[in-house]
Amino acid sequence: MSTPDRKTPTRADYVHWRTITTRWRDDDAYGHLNNATYYEYFDTAVNAYLFETTGVNVRKLPKIGIVAETSCRYLREIGFPEPVEAGLVVDKVGSSSVIYRIGLFQGPGEEAAAEGRFVHVYVDNTEHSRSGARGNEARRPVTPMPEEIREAVMPLWRQN
Amino acid sequence: MSTPDRKTPTRADYVHWRTITTRWRDDDAYGHLNNATYYEYFDTAVNAYLFETTGVNVRKLPKIGIVAETSCRYLREIGFPEPVEAGLVVDKVGSSSVIYRIGLFQGPGEEAAAEGRFVHVYVDNTEHSRSGARGNEARRPVTPMPEEIREAVMPLWRQN
Amino acid sequence: MSTPDRKTPTRADYVHWRTITTRWRDDDAYGHLNNATYYEYFDTAVNAYLFETTGVNVRKLPKIGIVAETSCRYLREIGFPEPVEAGLVVDKVGSSSVIYRIGLFQGPGEEAAAEGRFVHVYVDNTEHSRSGARGNEARRPVTPMPEEIREAVMPLWRQN
Amino acid sequence: MSTPDRKTPTRADYVHWRTITTRWRDDDAYGHLNNATYYEYFDTAVNAYLFETTGVNVRKLPKIGIVAETSCRYLREIGFPEPVEAGLVVDKVGSSSVIYRIGLFQGPGEEAAAEGRFVHVYVDNTEHSRSGARGNEARRPVTPMPEEIREAVMPLWRQN
Repeated sequence: MSTPDRKTPTRADYVHWRTITTRWRDDDAYGHLNNATYYEYFDTAVNAYLFETTGVNVRKLPKIGIVAETSCRYLREIGFPEPVEAGLVVDKVGSSSVIYRIGLFQGPGEEAAAEGRFVHVYVDNTEHSRSGARGNEARRPVTPMPEEIREAVMPLWRQN
Repeated sequence: MSTPDRKTPTRADYVHWRTITTRWRDDDAYGHLNNATYYEYFDTAVNAYLFETTGVNVRKLPKIGIVAETSCRYLREIGFPEPVEAGLVVDKVGSSSVIYRIGLFQGPGEEAAAEGRFVHVYVDNTEHSRSGARGNEARRPVTPMPEEIREAVMPLWRQN
Repeated sequence: MSTPDRKTPTRADYVHWRTITTRWRDDDAYGHLNNATYYEYFDTAVNAYLFETTGVNVRKLPKIGIVAETSCRYLREIGFPEPVEAGLVVDKVGSSSVIYRIGLFQGPGEEAAAEGRFVHVYVDNTEHSRSGARGNEARRPVTPMPEEIREAVMPLWRQN
Repeated sequence: MSTPDRKTPTRADYVHWRTITTRWRDDDAYGHLNNATYYEYFDTAVNAYLFETTGVNVRKLPKIGIVAETSCRYLREIGFPEPVEAGLVVDKVGSSSVIYRIGLFQGPGEEAAAEGRFVHVYVDNTEHSRSGARGNEARRPVTPMPEEIREAVMPLWRQN
């Protein structure tokens, strides 16, 4: 399934690591990790890093990161029961957004089984904002992102 | 959250429609549909269409579609309890692959709340193939895709 | 898999009905609905009823129902892609709790494919309460439950 | 939420332990682990133990364990991002069934945050059997369960 025009990421492409345990339910009727489940791993790799590195409950900050775009290339099948290692790196830090890449690995190989892209945009987290969240308006990015977040993500930023 | 350089899809951009009921669990701690959950809807929109249109259990065909790439732009928040309408269109039919776009709508508006891209690649579904699926080899596309599948997706293809 | 000492529920045992669409991901490696997924249907059948019948966002009420106990008997295999019909009935209305039973049906038969039991207990939903929710204290039930909820569930109560 | 007439399980009640990592998506709109998610943990605790202890892919055995009954008591709130420890013990080993209990713990306390019950019944796993799985017939238990399974679960059996 590899896309010929982009190279397969390897462990050397990532800065921070986390182990995620797989679950019986992660595998679908084809006996391999369901394509949507990969995104649960990406979301977890990013947010668990932010919780641990900032030391605060990031859900309660006055601005929160909501997801604006995601994508995944599936390069090799993985699945239950072995754990997955998720490598994390930051491609871009803007004033109100962060672009992460996450590589998933299972077993000893150097090449990623999948690579995800995950874009967080920081928006207002006040009650007023939340009330309108389901209306016709998209939530608008607010600048700058919380300082705790910026400090947490800068060490992951690898400028190409 | 809109990305300024791409236009927001509208209902007119899709060919086939399906209603998907939301679930309490679809909403995450921010009280809106979790970003990974959108991919469960994309997967369902594509595969339910294939089951119904081919009239066969597509899981048992000698070649099956596995997911090579997916992506999503999140344009407006949606969530439980109202149902979601998923619009489906095909961007490309190759000899062993199909590229779908799926728009999600909730409520009366004309603009999509999210747009997904979903790439199926057809691979061998024999027992021999499945046994090796977790090895170091990626599954290789096989051509051509099953004739039932090609006949099902051609009416969704809208050539730009 | 039927348990010989309890009768199989039939459609006549339920008061309110809701259609839930199945998803590709609901089926696990055995090609049938994963046992945990049934509980997503139970949760949805109960909460969607409460949203629609009360006409309010039940998540924002000063007291909210949290789940104290659940159980399921799996009587017959179901799965993607056909929809599931969920029948709902209330077994008990206490001062701060409601016990629901939910029967799941797929296809034309009269007998349930599964039956769930779902116990909601009403607890304080103030900010103070939420802050301590992860501490060593269990959240204590508060009486009485919101009047909107009581009015919604009474018509489902079938006293034996 | 504790049920007064049953004691709260403690770590001493379980025989085998496994760490399960929580995911951002596990928490629902109330900011705590969704009630259905607990069952993903139970399923995983049981099946990962069987894979590892038997050393075989239990999905490919001529008889497989399918879930006949499950239940859970939710005693204390847990959630993302800290990991959960799952304790496993067997209450009964029949000729074609196994009854497990699983306790979930998060943080240093001795008392379980939840206790699950999980009943596996062994059924025929031949192609003929699978084809009929969605028909009107329930899959019937077959005796005896695979010898690998019996040998794996006996050390977990704690007879009261």
